[in-house]
Amino acid sequence: MRLSQRATAIQESPIRKLAPLAAAARERGVSIYNLNIGQPDVHTPPEFLKAIAAYTDPVLRYGPSDGLPELREAMCDYFARYDIALDPTEVLITNGGSEAILFAFNVVADDGEEIIIPEPFYTNYNGYAEMANVRVKPVRAHAEDGFHLPADEVLEAAVTPRTRAMLICSPNNPTGTVLSWEELERLAAFARRHDLFLIGDEVYKEFTYDGRRHRSLLELPDVRDRVIVVDSISKRFSACGARVGAVISRNREVMASILKFGQARLCPPTLEQLGAVAAYRLGESYFEAVREEYQRRRDVMFDALTRDPGIVLRRPRGAFYMIVKMAGVEDSDAFAEWLLTDHAVDAETILVAPAGGFYGTPGAGRDEVRIAYVLEVPKLERAAAILLAGLARYRAERHAAAPA
Amino acid sequence: MRLSQRATAIQESPIRKLAPLAAAARERGVSIYNLNIGQPDVHTPPEFLKAIAAYTDPVLRYGPSDGLPELREAMCDYFARYDIALDPTEVLITNGGSEAILFAFNVVADDGEEIIIPEPFYTNYNGYAEMANVRVKPVRAHAEDGFHLPADEVLEAAVTPRTRAMLICSPNNPTGTVLSWEELERLAAFARRHDLFLIGDEVYKEFTYDGRRHRSLLELPDVRDRVIVVDSISKRFSACGARVGAVISRNREVMASILKFGQARLCPPTLEQLGAVAAYRLGESYFEAVREEYQRRRDVMFDALTRDPGIVLRRPRGAFYMIVKMAGVEDSDAFAEWLLTDHAVDAETILVAPAGGFYGTPGAGRDEVRIAYVLEVPKLERAAAILLAGLARYRAERHAAAPA
Repeated sequence: MRLSQRATAIQESPIRKLAPLAAAARERGVSIYNLNIGQPDVHTPPEFLKAIAAYTDPVLRYGPSDGLPELREAMCDYFARYDIALDPTEVLITNGGSEAILFAFNVVADDGEEIIIPEPFYTNYNGYAEMANVRVKPVRAHAEDGFHLPADEVLEAAVTPRTRAMLICSPNNPTGTVLSWEELERLAAFARRHDLFLIGDEVYKEFTYDGRRHRSLLELPDVRDRVIVVDSISKRFSACGARVGAVISRNREVMASILKFGQARLCPPTLEQLGAVAAYRLGESYFEAVREEYQRRRDVMFDALTRDPGIVLRRPRGAFYMIVKMAGVEDSDAFAEWLLTDHAVDAETILVAPAGGFYGTPGAGRDEVRIAYVLEVPKLERAAAILLAGLARYRAERHAAAPA
Repeated sequence: MRLSQRATAIQESPIRKLAPLAAAARERGVSIYNLNIGQPDVHTPPEFLKAIAAYTDPVLRYGPSDGLPELREAMCDYFARYDIALDPTEVLITNGGSEAILFAFNVVADDGEEIIIPEPFYTNYNGYAEMANVRVKPVRAHAEDGFHLPADEVLEAAVTPRTRAMLICSPNNPTGTVLSWEELERLAAFARRHDLFLIGDEVYKEFTYDGRRHRSLLELPDVRDRVIVVDSISKRFSACGARVGAVISRNREVMASILKFGQARLCPPTLEQLGAVAAYRLGESYFEAVREEYQRRRDVMFDALTRDPGIVLRRPRGAFYMIVKMAGVEDSDAFAEWLLTDHAVDAETILVAPAGGFYGTPGAGRDEVRIAYVLEVPKLERAAAILLAGLARYRAERHAAAPA
């Protein structure tokens, strides 16, 4: 049986490819620190599960296609704390941020049309693009300037008659970069110049450090009709398994059309929406504690790694990832495998995500890995030491093996 | 801002269009029996919610992209009761049956390729087709023969070089028709003849009456690689708001590819999967009670409506829907509106789904409505009487108004 072309083209999740080697290492008695997946270890607010356990309706009915009204209102209240005025009709609840991205792609672009995304980018955009039959057009960001927005001429060079939107993720997965207000204004001007939608993946909104505050595309005054924000409670409330996201736009046509896509899939899950309502009502103090903890972790990892002069890394300001560029590593897939098969310190090693999978340009990012700092500080210190020791050994072995 | 073509092309849910008129009727003090939406009133098994309330992990983590292993095993045990041998690797859990359909469409067809579906069919197939950029090719089934599978020559005439699959839904929404084993064998031969996939929407599997037993595409011996079944707990356990479905296939390439689509959206909701495990462990007796209740309801509605000699209706054998063809109704959209705006018996009226939305062929089904019998028997008796009275009045008024 011949499958569809997209069924064969869709990429395997690159951060899951190393799993068999990790399993084999564990079988040999080697413990592994998982720096490869963005699964927070912070507790889900107990209020979330309590609200679900309190459900008493004897029939778990279909909910509204656009989500429970109380959740849409709770989200508006949340955004009001950031001086972002939203009406519940501008918020539609989705099956995780994933579906929000898929809906956004579907509504802005048709088959073969293009969406510009700075690379490295969240791998799963590729999967959604495949499902929506749109093309991702990468523009290159660089470790040397902290993966900030490429210069205008780079953006301009990526525009074609088929370009329909630009997507940015800030705070960024996989780089941790937080775009400045000036960068958002550059994006707004770019979108107006070429009549593009701006899609903002802002699921890490709460994760900004050093006293910085996230600025949203929703704050830009003169592109209100162009902005579509995708959001999720997965990271915000450490509720990745809940699958509650949202798509937000002030463009009424966009929302009306997304509602029709939403009706086709009936509704998002009811119980987790009730949990999300309770979580959104927690207020700011919940985030402060979480933010402090992640900032500490970022500092531990950043300070350790930048002791190696062969590492290029600017202090990331948000999310809980960093892309680490390493002299002496030409193929980070091979390096990540080697860490699992050949490296261990006191029967412990680490699992990192090779960065190639986060690039749309073939061959890019081969000397980089993504580190997710979602472990407690003592474990992170240990993991950083294992990485640095591994890097030193790897360079030495490669150097020794090189032809004279 | 120009939206994508598909964003403007996607159909509004036809069963939701009447909502404003229903709201207006309620404001005038008219009560409405909802015969329009397949929301069962049967209780969700209490075990479902208990299992969720028992969740104690402090972090609601990402689950596996293919679903919780215990749910995939519970489903295999369930199918084993029907002598359908499945391995957990042949079952992938989805965000409702909706996502299962979307994955199936994505994996069998590329842009503009065609999937044959007997009409009338579940409206949302159109939405998924729009999202997946595939074309629905309808083949006509008829009220007069109980909406059974069209003759071979009708199927043959629908095949083009772009045909990739045929989809059947049995027990059927919206017709209630249950395909016979002989019909499934005809489908298997058809699929082999034209090298097609067979997609089976079997979410109403438990809802068969008169002692008949549902036969699954999974039971066909010589099309094992061609069959993809979409499944859901929404109706099976009256858990529509849970969003737990599954895609089932013994074709390893199909499952490997769907897993990659699944990885892109990370995972289905964890808590409801735990509820589903508990529900699947309930055993057969749960279904027997539900089946008896729905059979009684079907009989009440069928017996009442067929007293009208102008109604064409064969006794449906499954699901909880029937398509009712009515002499004297030329435009069932107008008739459904009229029931809300102009008709009432003792300040009560009914909401029905005009059947046009269930047809792919423009203009088809204009003299038909879909009735969902998801109310208790006394309410159904009352609703049927209101429909028959309305139909008589509607015919008389139209007749009186007709030009002499």
